[in-house]
Amino acid sequence: MSKQDTKQHLLDIGTDLLIRDGFFHTGINEVLVHADVPKGSFYYYFKSKEDFGLQVLVNFANNNRAFLQNHLDDLHLRPLARLRAYFSASIERLTAQHFTQGCLIGNMTQEMADQSETFRTALQDMMNDWAGQIAGALREAQVSGEISPEAEVDDLANFCLNSWQGAILRMKVAKTSEPLEAFVRLFFEVILH
Amino acid sequence: MSKQDTKQHLLDIGTDLLIRDGFFHTGINEVLVHADVPKGSFYYYFKSKEDFGLQVLVNFANNNRAFLQNHLDDLHLRPLARLRAYFSASIERLTAQHFTQGCLIGNMTQEMADQSETFRTALQDMMNDWAGQIAGALREAQVSGEISPEAEVDDLANFCLNSWQGAILRMKVAKTSEPLEAFVRLFFEVILH
Repeated sequence: MSKQDTKQHLLDIGTDLLIRDGFFHTGINEVLVHADVPKGSFYYYFKSKEDFGLQVLVNFANNNRAFLQNHLDDLHLRPLARLRAYFSASIERLTAQHFTQGCLIGNMTQEMADQSETFRTALQDMMNDWAGQIAGALREAQVSGEISPEAEVDDLANFCLNSWQGAILRMKVAKTSEPLEAFVRLFFEVILH
Repeated sequence: MSKQDTKQHLLDIGTDLLIRDGFFHTGINEVLVHADVPKGSFYYYFKSKEDFGLQVLVNFANNNRAFLQNHLDDLHLRPLARLRAYFSASIERLTAQHFTQGCLIGNMTQEMADQSETFRTALQDMMNDWAGQIAGALREAQVSGEISPEAEVDDLANFCLNSWQGAILRMKVAKTSEPLEAFVRLFFEVILH
């Protein structure tokens, strides 16, 4: 593997382990065994376990951002339908994982926000960025006349993200897609009306 | 201390530790040191760490249920105002904790739903019970004409609980009450309208 491939391989393995078991519960040795990479190699790419966790998180957030942007760029659909397609596609992913794991950003917030100021500020930036992307989509829907010109777009976008995270939490305990589907129904058919 | 006092003392200490550090991260020895109780005494009341965690959770859920019921029983207010008063009082509690800790039911769901079927089913029952209490309040609001007779009360109650949990998650990262206030505003002034 090239250096870039090895690093990405470690980030991918780290994503799987952190999203399943959390940060404290995942040991570097476990990452090395799963990745089949020697310890020295790990420390070539990452300064510490914290640095590794942060880079895994950034990698996850970048993928999530690209996944959402990909849907928002689909000009065949009207603005609200683009955003709704993103949530539908996310529900498909979560269903394929049998309603386990959830969202690494939400999981790490729960676990790390009170434990590490470094993680908290990184997670806050990621949540703000994510809500900003949603706000952009809602602003386009406003321009196209799909939602009221008086709608408070930033408030709605933050509420949308937070309620989505809450729906994922309930999904983890209910092990069905119902909380996710109910979120989409209520957000798009009641709140935005 | 009487036996009942000692057990309750252990549950109270356990609540503080589990809500702050999570289940895996809290050791029985740490509980014993904080509670100033010998190990044998712990195992007199609890079969295992899992049994302890579950009893801490049940104790928390019972307190939360009573706290909500207390507000719903306040006949000086109209039904929706009773429910809203519960969320306002909860925001005061979370503010007093400087937006740390959050809700033990939400925290344990995040940490344990995929790790222990025993915890998952207990948490699912607690969430269902909580949503059922909210649904009862919304049904009273429906009878009193505060919300539409066509409103899907069970859907709204589940959405309310899930979005509240999501708002608490965002609060943990933002360290302000804004996500909580925004939830109350949007739920009571937009969704229920």
